[in-house]
Amino acid sequence: MRVLRCPECGLEVPPLSPSNTCPRCGEPLFLEVDPEDIVREGARSLVPGDLKRVTLGEGGTPLIQHGRLLLKLEFLNPTGSFKDRGAALTISRALAAGWRTVVEDSSGNAGIAVAAYAARAGIRARIYAPADAPQGKLRLIRAFGAELMTARTRDEARRAALEDRSGVYVGHVVEPFFIEGVKDLALELVRSGERFDAIAVPVASGSLFLGLYKGFEELARLGLVDGVPTMVPVEACGFAKLTRYLKTVFLACEEGARSLLADALRLTAVPRLRQIAERAGRVSPYVIVVGDESIGEALRELYSIGLPVEPTSAAVYAAAKHVARDVGGRVVVPLTGSGLKYVPAPSELLDRYLFGAAPPR
Amino acid sequence: MRVLRCPECGLEVPPLSPSNTCPRCGEPLFLEVDPEDIVREGARSLVPGDLKRVTLGEGGTPLIQHGRLLLKLEFLNPTGSFKDRGAALTISRALAAGWRTVVEDSSGNAGIAVAAYAARAGIRARIYAPADAPQGKLRLIRAFGAELMTARTRDEARRAALEDRSGVYVGHVVEPFFIEGVKDLALELVRSGERFDAIAVPVASGSLFLGLYKGFEELARLGLVDGVPTMVPVEACGFAKLTRYLKTVFLACEEGARSLLADALRLTAVPRLRQIAERAGRVSPYVIVVGDESIGEALRELYSIGLPVEPTSAAVYAAAKHVARDVGGRVVVPLTGSGLKYVPAPSELLDRYLFGAAPPR
Repeated sequence: MRVLRCPECGLEVPPLSPSNTCPRCGEPLFLEVDPEDIVREGARSLVPGDLKRVTLGEGGTPLIQHGRLLLKLEFLNPTGSFKDRGAALTISRALAAGWRTVVEDSSGNAGIAVAAYAARAGIRARIYAPADAPQGKLRLIRAFGAELMTARTRDEARRAALEDRSGVYVGHVVEPFFIEGVKDLALELVRSGERFDAIAVPVASGSLFLGLYKGFEELARLGLVDGVPTMVPVEACGFAKLTRYLKTVFLACEEGARSLLADALRLTAVPRLRQIAERAGRVSPYVIVVGDESIGEALRELYSIGLPVEPTSAAVYAAAKHVARDVGGRVVVPLTGSGLKYVPAPSELLDRYLFGAAPPR
Repeated sequence: MRVLRCPECGLEVPPLSPSNTCPRCGEPLFLEVDPEDIVREGARSLVPGDLKRVTLGEGGTPLIQHGRLLLKLEFLNPTGSFKDRGAALTISRALAAGWRTVVEDSSGNAGIAVAAYAARAGIRARIYAPADAPQGKLRLIRAFGAELMTARTRDEARRAALEDRSGVYVGHVVEPFFIEGVKDLALELVRSGERFDAIAVPVASGSLFLGLYKGFEELARLGLVDGVPTMVPVEACGFAKLTRYLKTVFLACEEGARSLLADALRLTAVPRLRQIAERAGRVSPYVIVVGDESIGEALRELYSIGLPVEPTSAAVYAAAKHVARDVGGRVVVPLTGSGLKYVPAPSELLDRYLFGAAPPR
């Protein structure tokens, strides 16, 4: 791997320095990968080969067909979300750099992933999360031995993490190696041999969107694809940030409503927002904003075909169905998070959608 | 595929008849696969190719190294356990045969798997389970739209399911296609290219043990392996059935004690017991019986390296460590079930081991 570079002012930063934003202008950095470092066709990864990889077996998730949708089962990553891809590389960098403690802020899944990979690498983790995150997620962070610090909101968790001086801040909302880890998802979609016309992409911090985009860009540089495909960002009702930049399609999202179900999308301060908006403007006709009625209905539908996902993934599924009808063709749906973190614990909100009126037992 | 055959009296039964035990002598049947039906080297499955497969993307799970252990992450199957492999083929047969309702009994994971694959295929499922199964597992069975019927014990659930005339009984404790589905696990271990000297195999109904055994036998017929490797059965303290047939190693299992943690191994009436014992006698020096102190310690260790498994998998991990010390060499550990079905809901028993004295939040 070569260098971290600021996309704004061009400043170069060594890849193992404890930076994820530009020390000069504050913009989140990207890892600049030399074409020679990118593994060629036939290999299994777009990740720079000179980084010793901390792994729990992430990636290589199934892709199954359902009508005109191609469901990419990212919830079958080791800790139950696509965040494992990013956490693997984030913690690989931390290990290479010799950091003893890492600090992360998360709505849940990224915190679980960083906690697990840090445990695997023998690194201490302090995870900041909102107290109203699903309790199952908070319990999992602790089960991996991480120190859990709760804050009032998701945004406050981010602020508190930035002020924590007990370790190196590796927050996935800015960490460039987190984005590197996600790139292989693009490679897997291309290698699957399946034809697709668009991808519906949930956007909170944007690591999935930016990782996919960077992956397709690098695949294009290698001549493996023509360019970045249509990637339609999906946001939660009441937490939309891209509506300022793109035409917007609302699904069951009334003025003033706020999604309770899509907990993984309830981030409002997004450091990489401009980077996401710029790219989304190039590859998507619109952003889709989904509300709880639509999410709940999609969630029930996904369980009725045997897929135990989390509510946030149902939002993406609902949006993808819209894209398939509207744009036509086949749409990839990354089902990013596992419902096993939810269903085992009774929840009045979720049970209403999953079980109808009568909550079970 | 050719025929179901009774290993006891030799009777042949058509593969799509609603039988899993011999109509003449009662012995559980095996599917007899013609060598020409077995897919050759280079292909991805040992499953007869003429059965249209109902799939949720099962199999192809990661294999990661940890010291001298090779951990096969079977808990990353679609519904969180290796049972998905068996359920996929069981429901494929049901669909091919035109059955509208299937009946299953289970301690939890197999019931979840059958419920999910039945949902995927549009088949109704009635699942019998003990009322004291982990509540998270029972909730998941219902989330997939299956009808959940609880009984006082695991053994009573089996009896009640056998008496249910509302659908075709496909109980994984006898279903031959369930065993067929597990065979590919043997193929994946061989194809991984990793050398190993033994496999630790949890045994309740024996579908994993018999499936692996049959898989290796068929691979040997194809000349891909020399024979069936050392496969050490693992049972739970207080629920051991193989101790009558094999030398026994006890790990933290006192006389009269009964495991509470290893809920997936708490079956006492095992229709295929003789078949398992016969094969285990050929390929294992002993059976290992594990008690809760050892399971709890192993569980904590697995979470401390980032692996969210269920307690039953920790029993197998503890046993595998014994085998690695005793037999030497590298030992495969199928981590069969996901801890995400447990950790999200508070549990006094589990929390004691996972979090120490103070239960979280």
